[in-house]
Amino acid sequence: MHTLIVVAHQNLAGSNTQSFLKETAALVPDATWLELGEQPLTAAEIATAQAQVRAADRIVLQFPLYWYSAPAKMWAWLEQVWVRGVVYDDDGGLLTGKTLGLVVNFGHPLRDYRLGGREGVTVDALLAPFAALARKTGLQMLPPLLIAEFARMTEQEHADLFVHYQQYLSLPRPDSQRQQAEWFAQQLSARGADLMADTLTDLQDESTQLHQTVRELRAGEVE
Amino acid sequence: MHTLIVVAHQNLAGSNTQSFLKETAALVPDATWLELGEQPLTAAEIATAQAQVRAADRIVLQFPLYWYSAPAKMWAWLEQVWVRGVVYDDDGGLLTGKTLGLVVNFGHPLRDYRLGGREGVTVDALLAPFAALARKTGLQMLPPLLIAEFARMTEQEHADLFVHYQQYLSLPRPDSQRQQAEWFAQQLSARGADLMADTLTDLQDESTQLHQTVRELRAGEVE
Repeated sequence: MHTLIVVAHQNLAGSNTQSFLKETAALVPDATWLELGEQPLTAAEIATAQAQVRAADRIVLQFPLYWYSAPAKMWAWLEQVWVRGVVYDDDGGLLTGKTLGLVVNFGHPLRDYRLGGREGVTVDALLAPFAALARKTGLQMLPPLLIAEFARMTEQEHADLFVHYQQYLSLPRPDSQRQQAEWFAQQLSARGADLMADTLTDLQDESTQLHQTVRELRAGEVE
Repeated sequence: MHTLIVVAHQNLAGSNTQSFLKETAALVPDATWLELGEQPLTAAEIATAQAQVRAADRIVLQFPLYWYSAPAKMWAWLEQVWVRGVVYDDDGGLLTGKTLGLVVNFGHPLRDYRLGGREGVTVDALLAPFAALARKTGLQMLPPLLIAEFARMTEQEHADLFVHYQQYLSLPRPDSQRQQAEWFAQQLSARGADLMADTLTDLQDESTQLHQTVRELRAGEVE
């Protein structure tokens, strides 16, 4: 299965969350990491992006929640690349058979996003435009992968995210327990138990470092 | 009451809906029409826009629904202009006392936007991010003014929109029947009944023309 990860961020280099995800995605055999940069795109860039969308079995839109939506960069990319004749036409969606994933990170705890919570609305409700977009283009939508307060996660939570994100990029049904178990078996068989354990340990060391750095940098505008 | 109308459109000059709204807004005494253009904004442009937001009693975000959301231009403007310290801080929203209006136009009939409808989701649900943004910044949100299939409206519907849009820009409570009645009384008294009737007639003539032009141009991508 080929996965296209479309990443929109105002300051990608400065995002610990995105750095972590990028390193993790690099371990997934058949995934393309597409960072959105300068816009508007040239005609050639649009054609390339449309070919990437066509070639993908899974399209993952990945971004921090900004003003309760995707960053402007993501919308600009969709406006330029996701046009009539490429993703839908009069007969319906042209992306039928593919899946849509959303990987959304944010700086507030998940408990803030509920009725009566600090934000007063669920993240699912805020992502309604993406469900409509999936419907329009024929994409089957996966439950979004929500990453709240990356900088405050424990090492164990970082390790869990490391696994879940890889599964999200590569499993037909990332929320299926059976497929998750098979994935672990494959990983162990393909890389050897030691390598897997090493990778996890390395990542935990790195995330501890990140954790500390980010805590020092935190000053209101968090993600 | 001073109203700031922030207009985001991919092709403003080509939009009959926006041309109609612009001419109508010009009749409202204390309204500023702000068309979003090239981005990113310069530091000076950001400062000007922030001053405009601070000076407004009502902020109206106006756009066609594009991929079930506001166009990228609107999000880019919000990212640059609506920042911590200007629209909210640690103590809460800094726009308290102001109102937020949304004027949203789209090419499908309103009946498509419901459970079981062609789009399968309500426009209100798609606008959830704006309700959250209002909550965060202290703005009181007005019911959105939805404009479906402008090109297919009857003359009477265009005349109704002409009135409702002016009321939306200028009445403290645009959905109050008492305030609507007072608004009519004021218009008649201020401009004279003849002038008001003339204006309506002119606009109906113009909209008939627009109606025909747009019908000829219609080819799939409608708004």
